[in-house]
Amino acid sequence: MAAQKPSCVVFGGGGFIGTNLCRRLAASGYRVRAFGRRRLFPAELDGVEWCQGNFTDTASVEAAIESCDVVFHLVHATMPQAADLDMAADVQNNVIPTLALLDHCRRSGVKRVVFASSGGTVYGRAQQIPTPETAPTDPICAYGISKLAIEKYLALFQHLHGLDFRVLRITNPFGPFQIALKNQGVIAALIARALRDQPVEIWGDGTVVRDFVFVEDVVDALVAAATDQGSERVFNIGGGRGRSLRDIITAIERQMGKTLRLEWKPGRPLDVPVSVVAIDRAAQTLGWVPNTPFETGLERTIEWAKKTLPTVKIPPQ
Amino acid sequence: MAAQKPSCVVFGGGGFIGTNLCRRLAASGYRVRAFGRRRLFPAELDGVEWCQGNFTDTASVEAAIESCDVVFHLVHATMPQAADLDMAADVQNNVIPTLALLDHCRRSGVKRVVFASSGGTVYGRAQQIPTPETAPTDPICAYGISKLAIEKYLALFQHLHGLDFRVLRITNPFGPFQIALKNQGVIAALIARALRDQPVEIWGDGTVVRDFVFVEDVVDALVAAATDQGSERVFNIGGGRGRSLRDIITAIERQMGKTLRLEWKPGRPLDVPVSVVAIDRAAQTLGWVPNTPFETGLERTIEWAKKTLPTVKIPPQ
Repeated sequence: MAAQKPSCVVFGGGGFIGTNLCRRLAASGYRVRAFGRRRLFPAELDGVEWCQGNFTDTASVEAAIESCDVVFHLVHATMPQAADLDMAADVQNNVIPTLALLDHCRRSGVKRVVFASSGGTVYGRAQQIPTPETAPTDPICAYGISKLAIEKYLALFQHLHGLDFRVLRITNPFGPFQIALKNQGVIAALIARALRDQPVEIWGDGTVVRDFVFVEDVVDALVAAATDQGSERVFNIGGGRGRSLRDIITAIERQMGKTLRLEWKPGRPLDVPVSVVAIDRAAQTLGWVPNTPFETGLERTIEWAKKTLPTVKIPPQ
Repeated sequence: MAAQKPSCVVFGGGGFIGTNLCRRLAASGYRVRAFGRRRLFPAELDGVEWCQGNFTDTASVEAAIESCDVVFHLVHATMPQAADLDMAADVQNNVIPTLALLDHCRRSGVKRVVFASSGGTVYGRAQQIPTPETAPTDPICAYGISKLAIEKYLALFQHLHGLDFRVLRITNPFGPFQIALKNQGVIAALIARALRDQPVEIWGDGTVVRDFVFVEDVVDALVAAATDQGSERVFNIGGGRGRSLRDIITAIERQMGKTLRLEWKPGRPLDVPVSVVAIDRAAQTLGWVPNTPFETGLERTIEWAKKTLPTVKIPPQ
C-alpha cells in the first residue's frame, strides 16, 4: 500500500496553520516546500524547503509551484479589520495573485489545490446555526468577500481547465505556533497576555459565540482534503460546537490559575453575534472529525505558550 | 404629489441599456447625467449631461457623482468571453473601480446605488428553473464572479456605511440601441446580419434556452428600483419564460420574411444550457412585470434596426 506520497507546496507555510501543516507533512514523509514572506518559527521547519517570497510576486510563486502535485493555499495577506479599511488593497493582495497562482497551477500540471477559506466570515449573519455549506453566503466583511471570490474562481478553474480543488471553510483555529499578531487569534492573545500579566482588550460584551477548532484537527482536514476522491468540493471545518468568549475566558483562567485583566471595548460591525458551522459533510466525505477535546487543545496550547513565548517577541496589541 | 425627482447619474449611460434609461429619465423630468467612454447614439441623448471618462479614472468618476442622489451602475468593461481569458483584468477593470465608486458614493451623500448584475451568469448551472434569487450562486464564467463580488460589496457598504442599494440581476436584454458589439446580444446580431444578408455564427446546436427581456421593461425595473422602499435588495429581471435560440431564429425569420444564413459552431464552456429566472420577487416588491410581449418587442427592435442600422457602422462579428 506504499503509493508514493505527492509532493506539496504550502503557500503561507511560515504562518500559524502553515507551520503546523508543514511539520505534519514532513513527518509523514511528504516532500514539502513552504512559501511565505517569513517563517514565524524557522527552527521548527526542519526538512521543509523554504521559499521566501511575496505572494504578489508572480515569478516567486511560479518557482515555488515547480514540480509539485498538491498546492495548499493558506495565504491571506490582509487581516479582517484592515480589509474593510482598504477593500481594493485586499483584492489586489489576495484575489489577483490567487488568479495568477491558479493559472500557473493549471499550466504546470498541479493535481489539486486545497484552499483555506473562512468558516467564520463567508456566511455573514447566518440564519441557520450550525451553518451548513449550502447556506447563503453574505459576508459582512471584505475579508469574507475576497475568500468567497477565490472559492468561486477555484470552481471556475475546474470548470474551464479541469484543475481539481478542495475548499476548507475553517472557523477559529487555535493551538501551538499561533501568536497574536495583528489582532488575530483571541485564545493566543488571551494566553499571551495572561502569561505577561498584561491587560487584554475585548470587543463587545463577551457574549459573541465562536467556533474554535484545534489546529491539529485542522491539519488532519487539510491532509484529508489533499487526497479525497469524493464529489464534494467545499467543507466546513470547525470544532463541532460554539463557545462564547466569556466561556473561553473562564476556561483559560481556570487552566492557568489566574484572573485575566480585561478591558471591555465596544463591539465591531464586522463581528457576527454567533458563528458555528455544521461539520457533517466533512465527517461523511473526508471521514474527518475534530478529535481533540477543547480542554485538551487548550492545555497543549498553554503548555506550548509557556515554553515558547518567553523566547518570542510579540508586538503590542 | 409632485415630490422633486432625484438627480441621477448613469454609469455606462452611453451604452445599450444606458441610452434607453437616460432617455426615459430625461423624458420623465429627472436631471440626468451619463458617464461612459463613449455614446453609441449621441444624438439620442438630448437633455442628458454627458461626462466622458474611463471607469478606472477615479477623478472622473467622482466628478460625475457630484450632487447626485441616485447612481445607476451599468458599467461592465469586460465581455464574458474576454473576462475568462484575463480574469485579473476583469477584476481590475470592474471590481476595483466599483469599490472606488462606492467609497465616493458613501462619502458624498448618495442616497442609493442601483446596480445592473447578470441574471444569466451569477447562478451558473442552476438546479432550479426558473431560478429564484435565493438559489446558489456558482458562476461558470469570470464575468459572473465579478458581478457577484460587486453585489457582495454593495451589501457590505450598506452594512458598514449605510449606503442604500438595489441589485437587478438582468437576463438577456434586447431592443432598440443594442448593436451587436463584442459578440453580445444575439437578437441584435441576428437582425443586423439578416438586414445585410450576412452569415451569422451560432455557438452550439441552438437548443440553449435563454431568458430575453425587452429593454423598455428593464428600464421600468431600473426606475422602480431607484425609489423602492421595500426590504429586499436583489431582484431577478427577466422576461418571465425561456426561449430556445432556435425559437428566436424562427421568430426573427418570420417577422423579417427571410431565412437567416446560419453557421453552426461548437458550444462554449461558459454557456449554461438553460437560463431562466423567476421574477415573482420583482412583481411583489417593485410592482414590476415585463409588460412587453416578446413578439411586440421583437417587432419594435426590427423596426428600429431597419431605420437605424444603415446609418451605423458595425464592426464585423
